[in-house]
Amino acid sequence: MSQLVARRGLRDLLVHSRVNCNMFARCVSAASVVRRAGDTNKPTLVHDWCGGFVGCNIRSEHVQVYLMGDFNMRWRRMCSASATEKKDEKPRLDTVRKDQDGGGSVTVPSYWGIETAKMKIARKDGSKWPWNCFMPWETHQADLTIDFKKHHVPKNMADKIAYVIVKILRRRYGCRAMMLETVAAVPGMVGGMLLHLKSIRRFEHSGGWIKALLEEAENERMHLMTMMELVKPKWYERLLVILVQGVFFSSFFTCYVVSPRLAHRIVGYLEEEAIHSYTEFLKDIDDGKIENVEAPAIAIDYWRLPEDATLKDVVTVIRADEAHHRDVNHFASDIRNQGKELREAAAPIGYH
Amino acid sequence: MSQLVARRGLRDLLVHSRVNCNMFARCVSAASVVRRAGDTNKPTLVHDWCGGFVGCNIRSEHVQVYLMGDFNMRWRRMCSASATEKKDEKPRLDTVRKDQDGGGSVTVPSYWGIETAKMKIARKDGSKWPWNCFMPWETHQADLTIDFKKHHVPKNMADKIAYVIVKILRRRYGCRAMMLETVAAVPGMVGGMLLHLKSIRRFEHSGGWIKALLEEAENERMHLMTMMELVKPKWYERLLVILVQGVFFSSFFTCYVVSPRLAHRIVGYLEEEAIHSYTEFLKDIDDGKIENVEAPAIAIDYWRLPEDATLKDVVTVIRADEAHHRDVNHFASDIRNQGKELREAAAPIGYH
Repeated sequence: MSQLVARRGLRDLLVHSRVNCNMFARCVSAASVVRRAGDTNKPTLVHDWCGGFVGCNIRSEHVQVYLMGDFNMRWRRMCSASATEKKDEKPRLDTVRKDQDGGGSVTVPSYWGIETAKMKIARKDGSKWPWNCFMPWETHQADLTIDFKKHHVPKNMADKIAYVIVKILRRRYGCRAMMLETVAAVPGMVGGMLLHLKSIRRFEHSGGWIKALLEEAENERMHLMTMMELVKPKWYERLLVILVQGVFFSSFFTCYVVSPRLAHRIVGYLEEEAIHSYTEFLKDIDDGKIENVEAPAIAIDYWRLPEDATLKDVVTVIRADEAHHRDVNHFASDIRNQGKELREAAAPIGYH
Repeated sequence: MSQLVARRGLRDLLVHSRVNCNMFARCVSAASVVRRAGDTNKPTLVHDWCGGFVGCNIRSEHVQVYLMGDFNMRWRRMCSASATEKKDEKPRLDTVRKDQDGGGSVTVPSYWGIETAKMKIARKDGSKWPWNCFMPWETHQADLTIDFKKHHVPKNMADKIAYVIVKILRRRYGCRAMMLETVAAVPGMVGGMLLHLKSIRRFEHSGGWIKALLEEAENERMHLMTMMELVKPKWYERLLVILVQGVFFSSFFTCYVVSPRLAHRIVGYLEEEAIHSYTEFLKDIDDGKIENVEAPAIAIDYWRLPEDATLKDVVTVIRADEAHHRDVNHFASDIRNQGKELREAAAPIGYH
């Protein structure tokens, strides 16, 4: 019986253990140390990391991590055990633009001991992990249970101003997904940066808000990286994006310095608009106005979608992310509204 | 025999599995969903996450994570198993400034479904995880094998300019740890932000460099948060920091826009200076000029140091971090020197 339990436990844990990025750093260092010592014995570590997402992830078992380094051998057991779970999946490497994702022909000077090439990450099907812009442990599965209908009714003057600004912006630039994402990835970065500077300037902790806002920016950027695969922007769109970013970045920067409460409220409303746009987007797909094409490889890996996911699935998870950002920003604005600093409330880290 | 193997495997894996931040997000959502449905059954999940750092960590087994949520029950076994490993360690909660680290009395509007209070994280000794500014899975153990003597000999004009600038800066402001860290936390943030804006403006991937640079900024900020516990800055120091940040931020911003190669080289040399200063710092501790006081709680948790760690241990790991940043930035400058974009080389993510 105890044997049975132990075996079941072993199986469960094989599926549920993972490594983290610090570990990779160590692996790379370890490996380079070994090389410096002239030791050529570099055993391969294979570890099924995905199950770390137990309870929130049923689709991520198609990824596996390979590391080169001088490692604790007991991991070899996990390697062989999880290796038996391989599925026949066609590698999607071909879909990646090497020139755009760290696949260039740069000579890495071993002098600096940075030998990222020695770090091999692959999906469980054995195909190489094709992204440098995000790692397997940075992927997430969208929480689709979130309420998309929520709306913050403008209460005070700041709320009303924010609401009007967003409505005007919407009328001016429309709500095309691409344009939306190039703008949406700015506020999180600006907010995170200003909180970072404030933290080191005032010798104060951040309460996790720097990370929460930077996570939002990164998530929005991944939306754009996905859209990019679906819609190739035209030259005048690219030009418009550059102009819009210039104006929006400086305006939002100023706005955040003057009133973080207003700034977060504006983002909250922008996200409400985004949800609206994506809902329209989904309707158009259902009505056949937009072809429900195959989901791009980057989206399948980032949101851990099924292999046969389509554009509709992608838009659905993106909309869920936007709904979470809406909540985070309205929440932040509410905190400021209470006359408190953001750091006085624990930040919703990893809240996608 | 197979029973023995299975048992050993189970033990090993108990020590080596972990959860990640995305999971926490899902836990919080899951919990709130349960509440919305009016279901009061919220089992507690306890999971020893620390071992994720296998091969690079021997000291992190004093942390444990508690989560509220509707979870996979098989984790309960790990809970009870790892619970037996508790040690008698005095909680270090008292060392945290609640007002500075998300412990404020902010009313969290359940309306937004963000209920971070439901997420309980504790060390393995049962004491509550006291930091909101960083989570257990963001801690790391410094790689002390790195060569502290390395120096990039100025090759071209940009190198020479960078070298001279840093020497002048050093003469002007000296190299007091506090001042050093308030400045050191700026470049990573500026670089990361500019690469982020470039990525969304040009519809290009980042090759992971946004993350790598932001990680550097966060790591430097944690150095400051640690120093802060040891040295209370005086009012004129705070004033100087504000002035220095204003000037340095704008100058570095401009410099990075004009020449990323020069900017990264400057940081590389700044880090070389930092290593030098911390080496002097260590000498002074050894000579008894500076009292080798007890390490602050935040440092023990962030670098996973032993309970009885001292100032010397802290300065040693900080110096190791600086050495890694030196490598990353000289490496980045070398890439630009090859006439390549950073994204053309995979970024050394998690390289502390």
